[in-house]
Amino acid sequence: MTEPRILEVRKKLLGKNDQLALDLRHEFARNGVFVANLVSSPGSGKTELLRATMAELGKTYTPAAVTGDLATENDADRLAESGALAKQILTGTMCHLEVDMVANAIQGWDLADLDFLFIENVGNLVCPGDFDLGEDLRVMLIATTEGEDKPLKYPTLISTCDVVVINKMDIAEAVECDVALLERNIHEVRPGVPIFKTSAKKGDGLAEWTAYLTEQYKQKTAQPA
Amino acid sequence: MTEPRILEVRKKLLGKNDQLALDLRHEFARNGVFVANLVSSPGSGKTELLRATMAELGKTYTPAAVTGDLATENDADRLAESGALAKQILTGTMCHLEVDMVANAIQGWDLADLDFLFIENVGNLVCPGDFDLGEDLRVMLIATTEGEDKPLKYPTLISTCDVVVINKMDIAEAVECDVALLERNIHEVRPGVPIFKTSAKKGDGLAEWTAYLTEQYKQKTAQPA
Repeated sequence: MTEPRILEVRKKLLGKNDQLALDLRHEFARNGVFVANLVSSPGSGKTELLRATMAELGKTYTPAAVTGDLATENDADRLAESGALAKQILTGTMCHLEVDMVANAIQGWDLADLDFLFIENVGNLVCPGDFDLGEDLRVMLIATTEGEDKPLKYPTLISTCDVVVINKMDIAEAVECDVALLERNIHEVRPGVPIFKTSAKKGDGLAEWTAYLTEQYKQKTAQPA
Repeated sequence: MTEPRILEVRKKLLGKNDQLALDLRHEFARNGVFVANLVSSPGSGKTELLRATMAELGKTYTPAAVTGDLATENDADRLAESGALAKQILTGTMCHLEVDMVANAIQGWDLADLDFLFIENVGNLVCPGDFDLGEDLRVMLIATTEGEDKPLKYPTLISTCDVVVINKMDIAEAVECDVALLERNIHEVRPGVPIFKTSAKKGDGLAEWTAYLTEQYKQKTAQPA
């Protein structure tokens, strides 16, 4: 009688989103899918980074993506160009993804066929932080165009992230971004977090970034689910 | 007996935020203060545009600002450099401003001394749309670094705005922004909305922008409150 009682208590402690995220996380693990949740401001280059990342990983693995926006199918169309599975989630007026939207979006996909699932969250530096999507890795993207003090001014989401990618490195100089200062500010809010520097458009830094993801994938799938 | 009854019904229809916004709007009108609420993504240059706008308007008028961030007093410090009244609102984990935060922030200021009040909202393209702050003008800022499809992907907030400012025009070419396409996309979501093009950093377009604000101020204060 003890175990069902414990499960019952846990269900009460976890909200609906968290319970479903937990279930989904188990399902991803059983199927050997490594899941990354990408969060950022609108316009930091999430879709472009994803497109480049999936093209690179797609040489060896099978990546797929779901992408959240209030409106338009533009992002899923761009991500599907490489032939990868990609599905748009339209959130209407909602400012973040919740896990049931992700679960609905991947219905009909055979997870056993996938190695990576990328979830592109709605561009928002605040609200996505509260919603577990069953991911293994929460990735924050910051563009060099956004200003060096962004991590200090919006600390809540970054403090839940596992890794930070500084994107649009190719125009850092043109927009007068002090990248060293940006890195210091990231580490002030989230000490020790790994930082990658990329230009999704030019391809700079992508080899290091995808090598990191591949390593994370191998570590996960080496464990018994 | 009729009037209190109507007020009673209206109070029930309006939420707490909207009722306070209505009261505040009356108070601004009585004191001849023109109020603008600035919304945008994080990093589009709201503070820099405000700094430049207040410096220009400050030659003739008395502007003040309240500025919302989750953390840090950086923005208010920057805005106060010109000698203008500026107060930081720290929202903690909240992703938008509500009108009671604005009312609290301006307590102790004599509104009769002010001509313009600028409210810099939290950087967020979704949630601020639902909260009336008692403003006369809702201004959306879009930077040329954000991508031309932003208005289509985040239509809800832009559809509540009275005017759009395209900022960071000085680097439009470097970031390969198709400004004509961005303008078409803005007008697709919000037909006929006035669009200004500025570089807050270099000063381009500021004369037209502040002339527009001055005209709006004159129209408001010419009316009996």
